[in-house]
Amino acid sequence: MNIENISSNKTFGGWHKQYSHRSAVLNCDMRFAIFLPPQASDGTKVPAVYWLSGLTCSDENFMQKSGAQRVAAELGIAIIAPDTSPRGDDVADNDSYDLGTGAGFYVNASQAPWNRHYRMYDYVVEELPALIEASFPISDRKSISGHSMGGHGALTIALKNPLQYQSVSAFSPISNPVNCPWGEKAFSQYLGNDKSQWLAHDASELMRTAQQFLPAKVEQGNADPFLEEQLKPETLVAAAKASGYPLELNSHDGYDHSYYFIASFIEEHLRFHASYLRT
Amino acid sequence: MNIENISSNKTFGGWHKQYSHRSAVLNCDMRFAIFLPPQASDGTKVPAVYWLSGLTCSDENFMQKSGAQRVAAELGIAIIAPDTSPRGDDVADNDSYDLGTGAGFYVNASQAPWNRHYRMYDYVVEELPALIEASFPISDRKSISGHSMGGHGALTIALKNPLQYQSVSAFSPISNPVNCPWGEKAFSQYLGNDKSQWLAHDASELMRTAQQFLPAKVEQGNADPFLEEQLKPETLVAAAKASGYPLELNSHDGYDHSYYFIASFIEEHLRFHASYLRT
Repeated sequence: MNIENISSNKTFGGWHKQYSHRSAVLNCDMRFAIFLPPQASDGTKVPAVYWLSGLTCSDENFMQKSGAQRVAAELGIAIIAPDTSPRGDDVADNDSYDLGTGAGFYVNASQAPWNRHYRMYDYVVEELPALIEASFPISDRKSISGHSMGGHGALTIALKNPLQYQSVSAFSPISNPVNCPWGEKAFSQYLGNDKSQWLAHDASELMRTAQQFLPAKVEQGNADPFLEEQLKPETLVAAAKASGYPLELNSHDGYDHSYYFIASFIEEHLRFHASYLRT
Repeated sequence: MNIENISSNKTFGGWHKQYSHRSAVLNCDMRFAIFLPPQASDGTKVPAVYWLSGLTCSDENFMQKSGAQRVAAELGIAIIAPDTSPRGDDVADNDSYDLGTGAGFYVNASQAPWNRHYRMYDYVVEELPALIEASFPISDRKSISGHSMGGHGALTIALKNPLQYQSVSAFSPISNPVNCPWGEKAFSQYLGNDKSQWLAHDASELMRTAQQFLPAKVEQGNADPFLEEQLKPETLVAAAKASGYPLELNSHDGYDHSYYFIASFIEEHLRFHASYLRT
């Protein structure tokens, strides 16, 4: 597994780096970003938080805008930020912002033309962590978080793989994609029209039927313009109540869907993950 | 003086907002960003740090990437981020990134075609603070900071107006523009070929001849690719030594010219400014 370093910036005593690599799963070249805290500089293995970004994003948004590196450097946690879809001239795409590149939705597409490349679920769950743990001083202790489409990704991936992660969190997640316009559009294209296939990637359905629990923390702004039509946190709360899932969902007056919201509360999420990653 | 609100985002208990307004000084519509800390929410006047950005930037770079709002919210300090040049279809421009829009260099241009709009010095020193103090709960106690071209702007503006500011700081400033390619290109276009006119906007010359002192703090990364050819912090240190100017210049191994560097040390700069703004 070869990876190529694209950029390096020292920050908070650690390093932000971007790498490109050939993804066998996605059948294209991919870029990811990593923050290595100062505690890893001597080769000591550190745990990692994987961050999944939202629609239209790349590996750059969280690294540039969240301010997470300050606390990650203090806590000795690496951060891994993958891209949000396969990329490249031969990758199927769509003119709309919420389908195709930048909108992989962290599923394995079963439908043409998407099924040639769009396997972000396998990429995030299997290929990328294997690459990371083989290439960097990073242990196999990991947690996962994300925003909006990436909040959906983080929740569904953790709920489907509770033994692989120590904790899960999300900001403004698409909590019930089988019942919202963003989810219906993407799932019908990627997974086909049989809606029973969609439920395996619906955070509310997975939480409602969960048997194994992970510590889970969700942050939601009450001034988020996508709250009622797309995000539906109330379905996640109801699902957690049904199964007894240990979900902490915090609502915040005045906050919207932007990184200004994420930056305001990312410290609490990193400390939450650290408390499970380091024990 | 009318201002129009363009965007509002709650962050760290305060508000990031963008406004547009007609600038009489610049003869065009301008946009700026402001962070209002929670302490200003009841109308209590707070002091402000003005941030001047570097080449190619707008009001957005610092607000999105520096992470400064966290500490400003704690300290009760507003942040004002103007654009880096006049903007608009009738504003003179140039194909290169380091002349014209995005590259105003915080001077008043004397030469055509630039002199119709490029008066960023007067805009930052006079028009913008008057507008800010008339429109927001912000006192006249202010400090100024900036990055690269904006570090040059912050240092020169503070050195020329020591009674208007409580303190000055800079990240990776263009310290001796009369002797570097960026400065020579911009000053020859904006100020003409008489180099004696340039010295009034050279931080090293102004510091060397300063009679009134302000607390001054400069941060510089030693892995900055522009260090030797464009930034020349050694000339600023020599100037401070000549005049006895209270300059603190900190060099940092491994850090480059990016916002990953700024984010790592902005907290120290805001605490530095706060210690003078709040007394």
